[in-house]
Amino acid sequence: MEDQPERSPRRLEFVSDGVIAIAATLLVLEIRPPGDSRHLLHGLGALWPSYLAYITTFLLIGNIWANHHVMFDHIRHADRAILFLNTLLLMVIAFLPFTASVLADAFRDGEGERVAVVLNAATFTVAAVIFNIIWWYARRRHLLRASLDTAGARAITRRFGLGVIWLAVGTVAGGLIPVLGTAVIIAFIVFYWLPISGELGMAGPPRTAAPRGRGRT
Amino acid sequence: MEDQPERSPRRLEFVSDGVIAIAATLLVLEIRPPGDSRHLLHGLGALWPSYLAYITTFLLIGNIWANHHVMFDHIRHADRAILFLNTLLLMVIAFLPFTASVLADAFRDGEGERVAVVLNAATFTVAAVIFNIIWWYARRRHLLRASLDTAGARAITRRFGLGVIWLAVGTVAGGLIPVLGTAVIIAFIVFYWLPISGELGMAGPPRTAAPRGRGRT
Amino acid sequence: MEDQPERSPRRLEFVSDGVIAIAATLLVLEIRPPGDSRHLLHGLGALWPSYLAYITTFLLIGNIWANHHVMFDHIRHADRAILFLNTLLLMVIAFLPFTASVLADAFRDGEGERVAVVLNAATFTVAAVIFNIIWWYARRRHLLRASLDTAGARAITRRFGLGVIWLAVGTVAGGLIPVLGTAVIIAFIVFYWLPISGELGMAGPPRTAAPRGRGRT
Amino acid sequence: MEDQPERSPRRLEFVSDGVIAIAATLLVLEIRPPGDSRHLLHGLGALWPSYLAYITTFLLIGNIWANHHVMFDHIRHADRAILFLNTLLLMVIAFLPFTASVLADAFRDGEGERVAVVLNAATFTVAAVIFNIIWWYARRRHLLRASLDTAGARAITRRFGLGVIWLAVGTVAGGLIPVLGTAVIIAFIVFYWLPISGELGMAGPPRTAAPRGRGRT
Repeated sequence: MEDQPERSPRRLEFVSDGVIAIAATLLVLEIRPPGDSRHLLHGLGALWPSYLAYITTFLLIGNIWANHHVMFDHIRHADRAILFLNTLLLMVIAFLPFTASVLADAFRDGEGERVAVVLNAATFTVAAVIFNIIWWYARRRHLLRASLDTAGARAITRRFGLGVIWLAVGTVAGGLIPVLGTAVIIAFIVFYWLPISGELGMAGPPRTAAPRGRGRT
Repeated sequence: MEDQPERSPRRLEFVSDGVIAIAATLLVLEIRPPGDSRHLLHGLGALWPSYLAYITTFLLIGNIWANHHVMFDHIRHADRAILFLNTLLLMVIAFLPFTASVLADAFRDGEGERVAVVLNAATFTVAAVIFNIIWWYARRRHLLRASLDTAGARAITRRFGLGVIWLAVGTVAGGLIPVLGTAVIIAFIVFYWLPISGELGMAGPPRTAAPRGRGRT
Repeated sequence: MEDQPERSPRRLEFVSDGVIAIAATLLVLEIRPPGDSRHLLHGLGALWPSYLAYITTFLLIGNIWANHHVMFDHIRHADRAILFLNTLLLMVIAFLPFTASVLADAFRDGEGERVAVVLNAATFTVAAVIFNIIWWYARRRHLLRASLDTAGARAITRRFGLGVIWLAVGTVAGGLIPVLGTAVIIAFIVFYWLPISGELGMAGPPRTAAPRGRGRT
Repeated sequence: MEDQPERSPRRLEFVSDGVIAIAATLLVLEIRPPGDSRHLLHGLGALWPSYLAYITTFLLIGNIWANHHVMFDHIRHADRAILFLNTLLLMVIAFLPFTASVLADAFRDGEGERVAVVLNAATFTVAAVIFNIIWWYARRRHLLRASLDTAGARAITRRFGLGVIWLAVGTVAGGLIPVLGTAVIIAFIVFYWLPISGELGMAGPPRTAAPRGRGRT
């Protein structure tokens, strides 16, 4: 664990991946099987708000994971402040099974959708804000790897900044028209699964093989 | 994390293993202890559908894990599309504690078995389809390692393709005769635990020791 | 992941550690907070069977983990059969939150203790049997590392074999006198936390520092 | 896993990170969504004790994780005794979702706060005591890395020792005045998120970049 001059914050990534994986997997516990097996097909169908909450939140968490990976790939050194900020971020992520459950309940009951959508969108916004703080802090403190050039850093900064605005808009929209807010959030999830321009994807040597493959399709 | 020309997508494997391990372990939460301790043996016996759902789903998840391992051992580089497809796959895997619970409830109540078996088999089929898409995509984009020759890649392709067909047959069979569908799925689990011909097992130097051992038994 | 002649089965250890950690941590979900906060101290005290089940099962799972580590430290190559056997082992370990819950319920209700103790001890016995099968298989197939000499392998064989006998005795004893069976199991947990004679502990250079330390105390 | 003279206890860190991540993430399961969606905002507001318990316990667990990391960064070799002590520590950490739930229930019901605060603070104190025992044992047995000088070891010893005193004071204060005990614990969490003087943060070369950054802000 020492004597290596440059070292990625492995245990931080490790515990983050753990929390993210667990939060995503716990989502399923909020989908309660229909109590009555007699009309099972009908009972399963009535759970559609739970499936919707499950799918959107799972994809969002997957997205958070991918972006977390992108961010920490570029952070060379994690000091106490980053550990703390990352813990705050994980605290918000681990809260998502609760907000997803509230969302599913509201759409199932046909009441409280406004509050539920705002709760969800606001929670996502807080997560995005923390992402930005970590990134801003790491840049300011020169904790980034030398392998990331200024253009690359700026691309990530723009992307993370846009995320906050997008999610804040979704929160406000959800407060006015719940379905509109939901649409804004879903559009966010779709858009943020697209790769950052110039991003390398996940590890591996994209210089030769991947771009060539990309060019072909 | 950089400067190494060839590198397996470690964090992807990592978070996948996490979700798979958690999904498998959460299965037990669906087995609720008998409320009444007076006739405990009888109460425990009445839970047999839960045990059956637990065992089959656990072995299937273990199987998915082993095949996930085989697949990603050969994938050199995971781009955004693979990250996304893998997230879809994990979303389906993390859904299995729910489908297992529905299955156990139906067999316990003696009602809705048809729907429950089809729900389970169809979910497995979707997982198998995503496996195939990831594999097909990685081959097409030349993201595989050079260490895998064409014959090896084809063996995996065949195996993954057969899996979809087998599970689809199980889904249809379960829609007609629930017990038959269950039998097809159990046969699938058994068969897919057998090693792929020419497969190396898990890491290690099979050139010398393992084949020799294999020959002996 | 390739080109290295000798390599420990990392992803297998990884997913095993995951399942073991999750199973241990899920135990706490079986301890339900007292519903009534008015007599909280009394309500907390009444949960003593849950605490007992929690502590013994957690220590046992910790023990299983330590022994799993010892075993796979010596296994050089994990073939399909070992993957499958290990999946069976994890399936039994992941079942322990259920058996612990049944145990706590029985002691709380003062009924069904016999069945609950036998269920727990029998489940532990099955886990120990699978440990032995994995070990026996790895020896027979020459999958062990060269660094383990015959004396070391025999010490582990003896220890694992003794475990089965001990736990089987605990199962039978629990069937006759529940408290006696519990005592046998607790003695097992204590004994198996003691180090294997000649065992190296966990990684690290025991040649110089550790033995010296050991000699001093 | 062998032939390397100095090796950190990787699998121990691994399983510890797993249990810590899971315990933190399970906290959310104790926050039950309001059953009634009609007055959702009000229902969500009434859950404030759950949020408070969630936030404080999550931050405390994050803190435990950071300190666990600091400690095991300096431990070169983990023998059986350390494995056992670490298992005890994890057992206490995995118990925290239960104590957090009891705390939230008591503050929600407005009854039993004294008992609940003492239960929580006492559990934290036990965790801190085990931290100290592990550290004391590793120092005494010369299991620390040579890279840690005596001054560094003493700084950690002081910090861990102070933690026990602080938490014990919180336990006693909570037994007298619940709110005071809560304040002492919250102050503890805040204080222990501050870096240890001379501590390096998480991996990476703080000699050049980080201190320079620190000086600037």
